[in-house]
Amino acid sequence: MIAFQTSPEKYRHWKLEAGDEGIASLTMDVQEDAPLRPDYKLKLNSYDLGVDIELADAVQRLRFEQPHIRAVVLRSGKSNIFCAGANIFMLGTSDHPFKVNFCKFTNETRLAMEDASQSSGQHYIAACGGTTAGGGYELALACDEILLVDDGNSAVSLPETALLAVLPGTGGLTRLVDKRKVRRDRADVFCTLAEGVKGRRALEWGLVDGVIPRSKFEAGVYERARAWAAKEPACKGPGIRLPELTLKISADRIDYEDVTLAMDRSLRTATLTVRGPREDAPKELAAIHEAGADFWPLRAFRSIDHALLHLRFNEPEIGLILLKSEGDLGRACAIDGALARFEGDWLVKETLLLIKRTLKRLDWTARTLFALIEPGSCFAGSLLELALGADRSYMLDSGDAGVCIAVTALNHGRFPMSNGLSRLESRFLGDPGRAAGAAARTLSAGDAEKAGLVTFALDAMDYEDAVRVAIEERASLSPDALTGMEANLRFAGPETIETKIFGRLSAWQNWIFTRPNATGAQGALTVYGTPERPAFDWRRT
Amino acid sequence: MIAFQTSPEKYRHWKLEAGDEGIASLTMDVQEDAPLRPDYKLKLNSYDLGVDIELADAVQRLRFEQPHIRAVVLRSGKSNIFCAGANIFMLGTSDHPFKVNFCKFTNETRLAMEDASQSSGQHYIAACGGTTAGGGYELALACDEILLVDDGNSAVSLPETALLAVLPGTGGLTRLVDKRKVRRDRADVFCTLAEGVKGRRALEWGLVDGVIPRSKFEAGVYERARAWAAKEPACKGPGIRLPELTLKISADRIDYEDVTLAMDRSLRTATLTVRGPREDAPKELAAIHEAGADFWPLRAFRSIDHALLHLRFNEPEIGLILLKSEGDLGRACAIDGALARFEGDWLVKETLLLIKRTLKRLDWTARTLFALIEPGSCFAGSLLELALGADRSYMLDSGDAGVCIAVTALNHGRFPMSNGLSRLESRFLGDPGRAAGAAARTLSAGDAEKAGLVTFALDAMDYEDAVRVAIEERASLSPDALTGMEANLRFAGPETIETKIFGRLSAWQNWIFTRPNATGAQGALTVYGTPERPAFDWRRT
Repeated sequence: MIAFQTSPEKYRHWKLEAGDEGIASLTMDVQEDAPLRPDYKLKLNSYDLGVDIELADAVQRLRFEQPHIRAVVLRSGKSNIFCAGANIFMLGTSDHPFKVNFCKFTNETRLAMEDASQSSGQHYIAACGGTTAGGGYELALACDEILLVDDGNSAVSLPETALLAVLPGTGGLTRLVDKRKVRRDRADVFCTLAEGVKGRRALEWGLVDGVIPRSKFEAGVYERARAWAAKEPACKGPGIRLPELTLKISADRIDYEDVTLAMDRSLRTATLTVRGPREDAPKELAAIHEAGADFWPLRAFRSIDHALLHLRFNEPEIGLILLKSEGDLGRACAIDGALARFEGDWLVKETLLLIKRTLKRLDWTARTLFALIEPGSCFAGSLLELALGADRSYMLDSGDAGVCIAVTALNHGRFPMSNGLSRLESRFLGDPGRAAGAAARTLSAGDAEKAGLVTFALDAMDYEDAVRVAIEERASLSPDALTGMEANLRFAGPETIETKIFGRLSAWQNWIFTRPNATGAQGALTVYGTPERPAFDWRRT
Repeated sequence: MIAFQTSPEKYRHWKLEAGDEGIASLTMDVQEDAPLRPDYKLKLNSYDLGVDIELADAVQRLRFEQPHIRAVVLRSGKSNIFCAGANIFMLGTSDHPFKVNFCKFTNETRLAMEDASQSSGQHYIAACGGTTAGGGYELALACDEILLVDDGNSAVSLPETALLAVLPGTGGLTRLVDKRKVRRDRADVFCTLAEGVKGRRALEWGLVDGVIPRSKFEAGVYERARAWAAKEPACKGPGIRLPELTLKISADRIDYEDVTLAMDRSLRTATLTVRGPREDAPKELAAIHEAGADFWPLRAFRSIDHALLHLRFNEPEIGLILLKSEGDLGRACAIDGALARFEGDWLVKETLLLIKRTLKRLDWTARTLFALIEPGSCFAGSLLELALGADRSYMLDSGDAGVCIAVTALNHGRFPMSNGLSRLESRFLGDPGRAAGAAARTLSAGDAEKAGLVTFALDAMDYEDAVRVAIEERASLSPDALTGMEANLRFAGPETIETKIFGRLSAWQNWIFTRPNATGAQGALTVYGTPERPAFDWRRT
């Protein structure tokens, strides 16, 4: 079982140091002998999931624990190499679902870096003091600025296609032409050049933002970090501690303080139940800071995030997640009210951003999502997003005094999906007025159905049967076809770099990962590092 | 070898009839016993590539031969069934490259229908007088309006996921939520319901635009067709005849009047040479109408289009297309001048639109494209688009009096790519002023390189070696990785329904086609129609 919790004192591959002038240093120094699985070594600052879990933790932690940090220098602890990318032997020996989920997680981590920059003013500078290859360059592409040492030797490269017959699938192709807007013909040359591009040409082609001689590299990097830091207001904080979540794992369930994840392996379903706040919403901002990591929305959504990662990696056969909530609808509304009232505060803002990222993680989870809205539930505002993000929702209609949901101000744009739209806007793409007009109010099942906020509102006679049949039917369908179907239906409307990475680039990479030219017995990924040459089926498709 | 030329008198599966009031009738009546390969029967108005080649011909022909037609009623010649979609046994017995190319061609045909509606005012009405399933409903989705008979029985459906473990990959998922903007939770229900949705619910969910009782169906359809026809100006034409192209096929080449396609199987390359106009551009519009299908741009681009289809289906191992031109640069510029001058004329406009569609076909061709700009070439304007659409271009620099290219007015937005941008705009995404500022002029190799219009300008000493090495290197790379790479690099910038269909939906479908759950020995597609049940690997990825 892969664990997703860590903290700086446990890091084996990264070192996080806060320095002066709001500048932190995040140093990648991968321990060869500490891979996640024992069958490969992490040479040349290559990474596996374990390395990336630490990176994701550091990026998240910087936002909550050190909000005064305004620039983060991402550097290597090894000489002459920045990062060699994802470990090839790890990829070559992993099964398809793991490869796909590994890529998805690393993509989410890089997007979290960009989110930290855009939303929280923590800017990343890639200090590429040596070879920056494959996933190493993709990591740099996720930074605000890429500085490459000019030593006649160090190059940036995306050798995946040439050496491994796969794609730079951690956002590489997309960020090259869409974020950095590198000319497509130059991108074509670059992506087939195993040795990469260095020095002046790297700068001229827009692959890096600066090239600096080795003797001036440290000073040059520091100068740029200061310039980035100077763009942001100086004072935020003090930060709060993010202790590891308290959780209890047993064979078929995980219990968190506010969340329970329960697996039914015979049905291949999991029920994710979120318990709403048990106390009244804080009236004062100070109370939120005092609660810190125990502030309900922060703790609850951190738990949901953890549960989703657990499902993806440790429960591959669970195909359907049933989303439920329990608690007091009024209190859940009141928490949203407090979040909205204090949103100018950095900690409240970070909490809202964490909820946003968690909901995106849900959107990109390749499992069917059904929301079940039943007596005792509290789908209000931020929790209602779970139901709006679901592939379908079933609501028990027990009359006007029965089950209710609540729209709050937070449903209007505070948690944009990857397509840039709120879940209400995505839902009512054909009728935008309906999204804008969904006023903050409590709705009965009948009203919710009329307002288009739930798929089905059913009376007690029909509800149980309908849900049971829907679950059984869903569980009988091909998991691959469902993954493809959901990836296409969930993200209508505008496309962004995020939707391109998850929708287009990842889909092509998934395809290529299944092709014998990459992963067959004579595939390039399989034979890499052996004396054998790959053998290709030359048919183009 | 699959032939791509046909004409109405040869159709086996369709009947095209022009009627009164600018309304034509296009009737699908698939002959069971006339499949493209003998190992399946085309039951229930299901289609294979042969059926779709006729449809594509009819759609194209209507625009040139019957420009007065303003509404086309797409109907079935069979009772109680509109169309059952792509033939499943054909799909089940086809290899992966064929399946992928078949889907791409059918997608292009449906997009051509939408282009006829949007650009030429020929609107399509789907008269679904019976079961409208899978690809049959996707065909209807490509129409301007879908009318379903309300007989308590006839439904629209996308049963691919439920019955075959594949996707509605001919635009179905995308058009559902992006074109028709069906609510995503309803789309989810609809796409897993093998029996589909009929009557009032189909209308309420936005799956169709009208439901009409059987007794009033014909009259109702005709009324809507008249309403569509009335939106367009009444008079265009008379049309011109589109005779089949004159071509000579031998073992390693095809010779058209203006184009030669020559295969080098040892290098796995093909050279596509376009010969520019041999005569001066017509000075009068009448001369263009008189030339008709022999008007150079029309004939040349029809030939390019044919060559691309030939390569896709009949030459699967050719991985690299070398794009060349031969002729007088001034004459090529002058032809563009005539096209621009007379663009208000319907025939000139149709010619421009055909060039646009052919260039899109090139963009979506999953082969590497290198443009070679050499002495005697005539890459001007519309022909320059071939070079701008290539993955790279190499230009021989023989000094200022040497090889030149020419930008014309047509390079500015007359041939938008699927992303809605011109090839110049796509090229200079990072520097939009450069696209706008590319004035109509003739450029030497040095100027062209400075202007960013070619990838490399090389002198005679370097040119030959550089091109040879680039070709050899490209030919050594995995065809799958190149397909994925090119699909991601070619279409930066905005996304549209077209780019979503080819980039996202198709990528997922390609992946699913390779998965044992669909195409393995026990896969759903393989065992469909047999007594066996599919067996699934339940791991979600």
